[in-house]
Formats: sequence, structure tokens, C-alpha cells
Amino acid sequence: MSATDQAVSAAVAAAEDWAAAPPEARARALKAAADALEAARAELVPLADSESHLGPARLNGELTRTTFQLGLFAEQVLAGGFYDARIDRPDPEWPTGPRPDLRRYRTALGPVLVFAASNFPFAFSVAGGDTASALAAGCPVVVKAHPGHPALSRRTAEIVTAALRDAGAPEGTFALIEGEQEGVEALRHPGIKAAAFTGSERGGLALAKIAADRPEPIPFYGELGSTNPVVVTSGAAKARGEEIAKGYVGSVTQGAGQFCTNPGILFVPAGDGIVDRISALLGEVAASPMLNDRIESGFLDAARTLGERPGVQRLIWPEDGSAAPRLLTMDLAAFAADSQAAARECFGPLGLVVTYERLRDVAEVLAKLPGQLTTSLHGEADETGELTGLAGVLAERSGRVLWNQWPTGVSVTHAMQHGGPYPATTTPATTSVGTAAIERFLRPVSYQNWPQDLLPQPLRDGNPWNVPQQIT
Amino acid sequence: MSATDQAVSAAVAAAEDWAAAPPEARARALKAAADALEAARAELVPLADSESHLGPARLNGELTRTTFQLGLFAEQVLAGGFYDARIDRPDPEWPTGPRPDLRRYRTALGPVLVFAASNFPFAFSVAGGDTASALAAGCPVVVKAHPGHPALSRRTAEIVTAALRDAGAPEGTFALIEGEQEGVEALRHPGIKAAAFTGSERGGLALAKIAADRPEPIPFYGELGSTNPVVVTSGAAKARGEEIAKGYVGSVTQGAGQFCTNPGILFVPAGDGIVDRISALLGEVAASPMLNDRIESGFLDAARTLGERPGVQRLIWPEDGSAAPRLLTMDLAAFAADSQAAARECFGPLGLVVTYERLRDVAEVLAKLPGQLTTSLHGEADETGELTGLAGVLAERSGRVLWNQWPTGVSVTHAMQHGGPYPATTTPATTSVGTAAIERFLRPVSYQNWPQDLLPQPLRDGNPWNVPQQIT
Repeated sequence: MSATDQAVSAAVAAAEDWAAAPPEARARALKAAADALEAARAELVPLADSESHLGPARLNGELTRTTFQLGLFAEQVLAGGFYDARIDRPDPEWPTGPRPDLRRYRTALGPVLVFAASNFPFAFSVAGGDTASALAAGCPVVVKAHPGHPALSRRTAEIVTAALRDAGAPEGTFALIEGEQEGVEALRHPGIKAAAFTGSERGGLALAKIAADRPEPIPFYGELGSTNPVVVTSGAAKARGEEIAKGYVGSVTQGAGQFCTNPGILFVPAGDGIVDRISALLGEVAASPMLNDRIESGFLDAARTLGERPGVQRLIWPEDGSAAPRLLTMDLAAFAADSQAAARECFGPLGLVVTYERLRDVAEVLAKLPGQLTTSLHGEADETGELTGLAGVLAERSGRVLWNQWPTGVSVTHAMQHGGPYPATTTPATTSVGTAAIERFLRPVSYQNWPQDLLPQPLRDGNPWNVPQQIT
Repeated sequence: MSATDQAVSAAVAAAEDWAAAPPEARARALKAAADALEAARAELVPLADSESHLGPARLNGELTRTTFQLGLFAEQVLAGGFYDARIDRPDPEWPTGPRPDLRRYRTALGPVLVFAASNFPFAFSVAGGDTASALAAGCPVVVKAHPGHPALSRRTAEIVTAALRDAGAPEGTFALIEGEQEGVEALRHPGIKAAAFTGSERGGLALAKIAADRPEPIPFYGELGSTNPVVVTSGAAKARGEEIAKGYVGSVTQGAGQFCTNPGILFVPAGDGIVDRISALLGEVAASPMLNDRIESGFLDAARTLGERPGVQRLIWPEDGSAAPRLLTMDLAAFAADSQAAARECFGPLGLVVTYERLRDVAEVLAKLPGQLTTSLHGEADETGELTGLAGVLAERSGRVLWNQWPTGVSVTHAMQHGGPYPATTTPATTSVGTAAIERFLRPVSYQNWPQDLLPQPLRDGNPWNVPQQIT
């Protein structure tokens, strides 16, 4: 039996007990994992830094986000809203014939495979959002480690495994596997009932195909990246040109540009001087080490390809082979003529500024772009009357729209949506960040005329788990 | 421009206005469609009978279900719960950094393609559940007519189109297309954003593949059928053998067995005489005309194949080539040895009674069956203590479990789940019947720091549509 088969088989064995664990037990286990990671902060942050080069400030913040997320999801388990419990009382007068006693809730899907990401060694990795949401839903988790931070992955898994076990979670509730082939083997394993992935479009689509081609296809929640277009109105450019330039440079170079919400493309009015301001500011930003050599060479290749597209001017273009920030510009007509290539994600610190003459032409071009995680609009309060059409296009093409803010920094809240039309995500109706992420790992079941003592707890008359029940 | 292209293009043109229509307007349009169909009852039922042979009693009931469904979904539009509106107020103290103003709701996906079914010429056809739920969600609908009832399809579409138009819905909100190639052309059309299907596993999986292979893959909600296993405990067989036999025969032959919830397989204790009772009762049931020749010959082929499997005994087996009810039996060991073939759906009036010695062996066999729409358990109140394991297996393998009731007759309510693990449905996390069906045609979008006058109505502070808002 391979290590992968062992991990998945143990997850299968744990599935029923973990799904049936009372909210208090499941919440306690999630909180125990958070506390244990917090207690190991002094060890984990330097380890993460040594493997990711992201620096202690960012990594400390990311660990805080990760433990907060586990705690917030524990609260959701206690609140029980995600069960979506509905009770129809029998109704002999129901217009289509006597209505039986019907009770519906959402139950855990079963073991979930999580593919960890490289760019968030804590928050989208071993104990990150996918793991937290699957565990909260009542699903055991098998994480396929990202090779970019193997030592951190192993140590995190040890801590989480021990914390869950000590808190009483069934053996097999959590496991780590390593290796690309092992990940594919797990994805094909009949015991795995859903998979979540954060990473490149190419890698994600290949795995999505494997998930779809199984004898029993399973949901594959892939978050694949985006160029996150930002539009600046002429009013905003006039009123706050310097502030916007500064904000853009900060967002596009943050974390060496290694965010799926990196605002890769900025649309600005032609001739307002904003390109020069950005150029001046970006020229001051030194190269930061990237996550690893593969990502760095991928960035340099993608940047080179983009820099050579027709109509592209290279404003900042280090020739020393470093991954220092780059700035390109082109006009809207050139972008429109080449938009599918020009709008490809370039994972790293690169900004493409597209100059436009008429805002309505921007809306037309954006309407044809591939789906995005985010789109943003920088405008003035007195312009909103003219922005209805553009606002509609932005919301149609993305999962989150922002006004006068930058898309990097994805808050973990109830109203967050991190996901968007294809190919930003493979399943646009779901989110991978925020409390709604838990819903991905649930499946509804109805119980008709079912005996009380065989009903799952959230559907019983006494409501022993004290979940919200919609009774009609 | 082909008729299909015209229908989809008109739907695309209508999408924004229909999605933004106030709840009162959308609800009024749905109710107008219901009223218009009701007003045409005297014309529609005979027309449906002439094409489907289902008889006026059943068809009158089905039309009632259809118009009730449109009205119930109109009420959901007014209630607005499916928007799942969530508002996070800004919170400077949020542990991961200041929380912005974030507002999330679910918006219409865009034009939906509905593949009508043959076996419910009203309730799962032109103005059926998929159409009602997509329209309620704010999506224009293009229906691909089922060739089994073309005249009824055209007449229903005329009535619905006129009613929607007279109620003020945008032109293009609803259209009918006909032809297999036209259906595939529509499914490949970039303007279509989701598809719903009720029908055979073979047809559904072929269409699901086309949906997945598009340049922009779209959700495909396929409800593909099921054999709906029913388990009878020894206590129930002893106490209510005659009643259970009668109920089974009624459910398996109702509508000539042409229901996706037809209880094809019945597990009964060996030697309790229930097989003989069923045999006596089923022998009295005459052949009913099936929906069409293709379905009848499909039934005869599938029945023949099943009747020749190893270990199968043919108890009632008309040799006159008619589609009269058939009864087969085999023991659990033979079924277990051949379960993937023996559990294939046989669409029509055929029952397979499997006799068992030990109930726990039944649970083991059921755990390995493909996913089912429903599973049922007939037991006595004093047996529930021993049924926990079996109940868990039934809920794990299906979308709806029933106690001492029969799966045919799917009530349209809030707590109904009509869908189950693959291959009963292609997307087990959704339902095609009941008010939760609306959720299939929605996609979440978050608005960050967005100006009030550009926000969609369900997210505004004044809550002009009066929808439930979860504010934190």
C-alpha cells in the first residue's frame, strides 16, 4: 500500500465519525490546530522565510491570517448556518397533493484532496483556507504539499495532525502527501470526493481534467489566477493621479508581485501623465527575491513574451536578468487587437498600463476579456452617474469589484468572494476565501418521513446541535 | 443566422434587464405564465395526452404541479432569500487588518439552456422546473424541445412567451428551439452560461462532455436516472407484507414505470412470501402505452438484457412483445456478484426483487452501488436501533431517503432534494426539484467599498428590494 493509498484510506475510515462529530468537538479541534500553530510561530516563520524568501513581516501576518481563519471557521461550525437545515412539516392541503414530512440539510462530501499553493506558504498551504473549510464542513483532508516549501509543509502537518488528534478528532482526519505523481494518484483515488487547488491555469486545468475523467467524476475547485484589470477614470486621474500611481506601484510589486490578485493591467486616460508617475515610482523599487527559481524563470519568460507583443512599449525593462519590477505600456487599440495574449497572467512584479481616449471603449474591451478574480474602478463620487455600464461589465467579468481600493489583500470575512468566471476559477459559483468557502464541501440530502432517532442531529425536532432551522 | 443563434442572441440581449428586473416584475411575469397555462388547461391536457398517452388524470395533476411551481418560485423571487445577501461593515479592528466594506450577493448566471424531458410533458418540459428556476434566478431561458411531444411544446412555448411579454419581461427572455443538432449548437453557443437536462444517462453524459469541452466550460446540471433501491426489514415484511407488496406494485407500474424515481430494486427477506404477493398483484396490471416507440423498444431491450443475467429468475415475463409489467427475482449473492449490471436503470414497468438472509449484507452491497436519486427503507418503529448503519449507507448513496413511503411523486417544496451522487446527477450538490433549484443559476459577486448608487439593489443600505440581508 503506497503512502498515498494509506493517507486516503485513513481519511475514508475517518469520514463518518468526523462528519458526525458534534459542533463543539469539531470547533475545538479546529481551534486546537490554530493554537498549536500560534504556539510554534517562533519556529514556523523563520522556516517559512528560509523556503519562500517572503520576509518575516509578511509571513507573520500570513500566519495570523491562517490561525484567525481556523478560528473563524470553528465559529461557523458552532453557528451551523452552512447546514442550511430546512424542515417541511406535513401538509395535507399542499396544492400538488399531501406534502410529506421532508427535512433537508447539507452533509459532508467525504475526504477532500487539497493541492497547496506556493505563494502563501501558510494561508493557502497545508493549514490554509481549503483545509480549514473542508475540515469545518466535516470532511477529512489529504494535503498534497507544494514542493516550494517542503520542510515547512512537513512541520505544519505534524503540528496540525497532533493538535487534531489531541483534540479527539478521528485518526486519519488529516494527512500530508508529497510528490506530483502522488497528487495525481490521490486525485484518482475513489476515496477522494472533492479536490481544491490554488495555482497556475495550466496545472489547474490538467488536474481538473483528471478529476472530470474519473469513473466517478468529482468537483474540482481550482483557483487559477487572473490579471485583475483596474480602470482609472479621467476624474480620478486628475484629482488623485499621484495617489493612484503610488497605490498601483505598491499593489503590483507587493510580495514580488506573486499574488493571484496582482493588478496586472491598469487602464488610464491617455495624456494625463499617470504613466510617467508610475514609471518614476516603479523605477525606485528594487528586485525582491521570488519564491523559487522555477517561478522566477517563468516570470522572466512571460514578461519577455509580453514585452515583445505588437504595440507594447517597454518603459522599465531591466536588462540584468534580474526579476526587478517591469513596466509596459500600450494604447487601447493595440491592446484590443491583441487582448487575449496581452491579458495573460504574468506571475510577478509587472505592470501593463493601457492608455485610452474614451471610457466607453474600455468597457467594450473588458467585456471580451477572460473571467477575472477581481476588477477595480478608481473614480470620483460625482462620476458614478456615467459609470453604470462599465460597473455592470466589471461585475459580469469578475467575482469581486473594488472602488478606489486595490485587489491585493483578500480579507477573510463573510461577504468575501474569491473566485470568478472561467478561467479565473473552474467553478465560478464558489469562493475559496471567506466563510462561504465551507459550502464547497457539502451535499444536500433530504429525509422523507424519517424516524426521529435515525435523523442527523441538525434535522431533529429537539435541534440538539442548535443550528438554524428553516421550518415551513 | 440560424434559429438557434437567434434565440440565444435574443436571450443574451435580454439577460441584463431580466436580471435587474425588480422582484415584483419578475414574480408577476412568472405568475402570468402560470395563469396563462392554467387558462389553456382544456386545450393543453388533451394535446399532451395525444402525444404522451399518459392519460388526462395524470396530466391534469402534472399541469397543476407545473403552474403551482411557477407560482411558488415567484414567491421565492419576492422573498429574495436566494440572493444570499451579506454585508460586512468596515471593521478597523479586524484581526487580519482593517476590514473594508464588503457586500456579496448571488447574481444571475446569464442565459440558460434547458433540455426538456419526455416523461413529464409539463413538469419537466417547456415550462417545467428547470425553466421556472432559471427564470426565477433572473436568467433568460432557451428550451430545447423534446421530440416526444412537439405540438404541446410549441403551444406551451407560445403561451409562455406571450404571457411573459405581456407582463413586461424583455423580448428574448424565453424561446423554444427544436432538433438534436440545434440543441448541441445551443450548448456550444458562447452566449449560453449554464444548461439543465433531465433524461437518460447516455444522453446526459454526452451533453455534459460537450459543456465541459467548450472554450469556456459551463455548469451542466444533468439529472440522469436511478434504480432507487428499497429495503424491507424482516419486521416490516412480517407486519405489513401485503401493504408493502401493494405499495411496491403501485409505485413500480405508475405512469408505465416511466419515472426516474421508479423503485426498480426491492430488497426483501428471503422466504417471507413477499415475492409471491408482489407477483400475484403485478400479474393483474395490464400493459399501459409507453411514451413513444423509442422508449418502448429501449425498455424491452433493457428488460431482456436484465432478464438474461446470471442468477435472475423471470417471475412475470410476457412473451407477447408488449410492454406489460415484468417481475424478476434473484438472491443477494447473485446480485452482489453482478451488481453493476443488475443495478442498471431499466426505464419502464419492471421490478427486480432481491432476497436476502442477513440485513447487514444488504448494507454492504448497497454501499457499492452507483449513486442514486433516492433510497427507501421500510421498517418498524422498534427496529430503528439496529438500522443506524444501513440508514447511513442509504444517505451516503442517494439524495433522498424515505421511510415507509415510496419514491415516486416528488413533492415541490423547500426541503426537497432531487439529485444524488454520480451518476444519478452530474452535480450532486444541487437539486432539480424544489425551491433550492433556483440556486443552480446564480453566481456570487462581492462589491468592495462600492458606491451606493452603483450597488445592485439587494446590497444597498436602504434595501429597496427588501431581501434578507445578513449584516455583520
